[in-house]
Amino acid sequence: MTLSTTRQAPAPEILDRCRELVRPALVESVRRLHPWHAETAAFSLGWSGVDGDPVPGSQGKGVRQALAVLGAEAAGGSGRDGVTGAVAVELIHTFSLIHDDIMDGDETRRRRPTVWKAYGTGPAVLAGDALFALAVRTLAEVPGPTGTAAVGHLSGALGDLVHGQAQDLLFESRPWTGSEAVLPHEYRAMATHKTGSLLGCAAALGAVLAGAPAPVADALDRAGRHLGVAFQAVDDLLGIWGDPQITGKPVHSDLRRLKKTFPVLAALASEHPAARRLEALLTGPGPLDGAGVRRAAELVDEAGGRRAAVTEARDQLRAARSCLDGVELAEGARGDLLTLIPFLIDRTG
Amino acid sequence: MTLSTTRQAPAPEILDRCRELVRPALVESVRRLHPWHAETAAFSLGWSGVDGDPVPGSQGKGVRQALAVLGAEAAGGSGRDGVTGAVAVELIHTFSLIHDDIMDGDETRRRRPTVWKAYGTGPAVLAGDALFALAVRTLAEVPGPTGTAAVGHLSGALGDLVHGQAQDLLFESRPWTGSEAVLPHEYRAMATHKTGSLLGCAAALGAVLAGAPAPVADALDRAGRHLGVAFQAVDDLLGIWGDPQITGKPVHSDLRRLKKTFPVLAALASEHPAARRLEALLTGPGPLDGAGVRRAAELVDEAGGRRAAVTEARDQLRAARSCLDGVELAEGARGDLLTLIPFLIDRTG
Repeated sequence: MTLSTTRQAPAPEILDRCRELVRPALVESVRRLHPWHAETAAFSLGWSGVDGDPVPGSQGKGVRQALAVLGAEAAGGSGRDGVTGAVAVELIHTFSLIHDDIMDGDETRRRRPTVWKAYGTGPAVLAGDALFALAVRTLAEVPGPTGTAAVGHLSGALGDLVHGQAQDLLFESRPWTGSEAVLPHEYRAMATHKTGSLLGCAAALGAVLAGAPAPVADALDRAGRHLGVAFQAVDDLLGIWGDPQITGKPVHSDLRRLKKTFPVLAALASEHPAARRLEALLTGPGPLDGAGVRRAAELVDEAGGRRAAVTEARDQLRAARSCLDGVELAEGARGDLLTLIPFLIDRTG
Repeated sequence: MTLSTTRQAPAPEILDRCRELVRPALVESVRRLHPWHAETAAFSLGWSGVDGDPVPGSQGKGVRQALAVLGAEAAGGSGRDGVTGAVAVELIHTFSLIHDDIMDGDETRRRRPTVWKAYGTGPAVLAGDALFALAVRTLAEVPGPTGTAAVGHLSGALGDLVHGQAQDLLFESRPWTGSEAVLPHEYRAMATHKTGSLLGCAAALGAVLAGAPAPVADALDRAGRHLGVAFQAVDDLLGIWGDPQITGKPVHSDLRRLKKTFPVLAALASEHPAARRLEALLTGPGPLDGAGVRRAAELVDEAGGRRAAVTEARDQLRAARSCLDGVELAEGARGDLLTLIPFLIDRTG
């Protein structure tokens, strides 16, 4: 029996395989952009430096493109069937990073300047728009009802993505406590929209392009949304306790910026006495100094915020897995998806 | 004979009729946005002030929505058939104004603060993205092959739009003279992309949604592209010689910013001795003072730049009309289109 002796590939191998499958089409797609935008896109994708010279090895993990490829395979198709979807979601992901960095005023990403910092705000806004337009065009060119369904999935995800980003930005101006405070369930909705929609869309697009029936695409979409919340919770943990050498962000970066992250919101929502001390610290006058930020991190931990975020990530992973259990998927791809999902969460940077 | 006694409605009446037809669907569509983006969109569309209170009468002319409605009628359909297309192009137009104002650093539009000035750059970037996403979604929801064709038209126009905006931004860093100078034909290509693509898309979308055959939609698209160049040439004339009371821009606004507009490019490309004096003035050291800007405007005129822009606008209008001559269109709508086209050019603000 071949099946029982097939070794399950480890996650980095799965990501590499999918990236290699998608890369030529992604390169070809970026070539369709105005040369100026193609250069900005190559920089943003980690393919080249500000000077346009190639920089090997600085690209992202390629989570979304992998989900699109595996979505196609899970639906019984070939990985190639998912490539157009993979290209579209990578373009959208790149667009959203470029625009999000403008909104958040972030000056570095993966230890390199962000696009607005390297090229200026105006050119960064436009480069994002160009990637957005190209993503839509890429799927609109898929002929027949498959293309129509693919555009439908992408346009739904786009709406959710900007909705989630609006929720996240508005959290910043809400208080830490009282009736206007951000509650953990609102955070979950935000992360589902902001991060989950595109992960879900990636897997669903792959399936749709491989001709999957609606229930399979929907299950993959829902799994991706849970994965998004887990992903965001881990991001929050790394933003407070991650190793700056690995994350590329300063220590306690989110606390310094007083971001409303899951561990802090969960800590404040707890009954533990440390929660009240954290509340007093965060609502005190003036910005937190270095010692204040360290103290806040301790209090978040003491009040159970760190543990709550870990639990949240695990619960969301379990929910993602159970979405996949509910539908018939090709076994190899199911195995790859089940390998990939925890790997994406079990990270240090 | 009804036909011979039918009075051709004047252009403002045509625009009003189309706006009234589209308005309820556009209001309904904006309501689908996150409340924050709905507020920004209502401000940008001229429906309300920064405080959210209604401001009657500050909206734009609604050129694009009118073209979509007339495109549907020209294809033998009802104006209602074009409404979804009209909504999509108005959303895209609003998105592009918001993002363009960020790129150009413009602080006012129609005598009101621009969106980034009123709400901040980050929120303006996101509000634009939300409108972009909603436009795509609006057409993606049109069922069947009609919706697919509509999304195809829009995604093509979006690609051209960002391409044209890139060309325009890059013109800024090119010299006035020498082998790197911007030539009039490059300007024409830029305006076709930047302004013409959405005007053409509007009319074509209306036709497509009314079930028009491809040659009709293509002819309307080409007509709209010519109209876009004419529109841009008139914009350039108004940016130098327009009445600030009507345009809402300071006198000689484009010359002050040393924008590469058609009248200046045409003047520099001429053999007239004033062209060389203009060249010396523009390439001289330091920015132009008030007297320098006035002198530049005189020299552009003397070298024939003003006349060339008027001729360009007229030629493009003629080309637009001849695109319409080449296809069979419903007579009433053809009359309305032929009334509207010169009206859009023959403006003072």
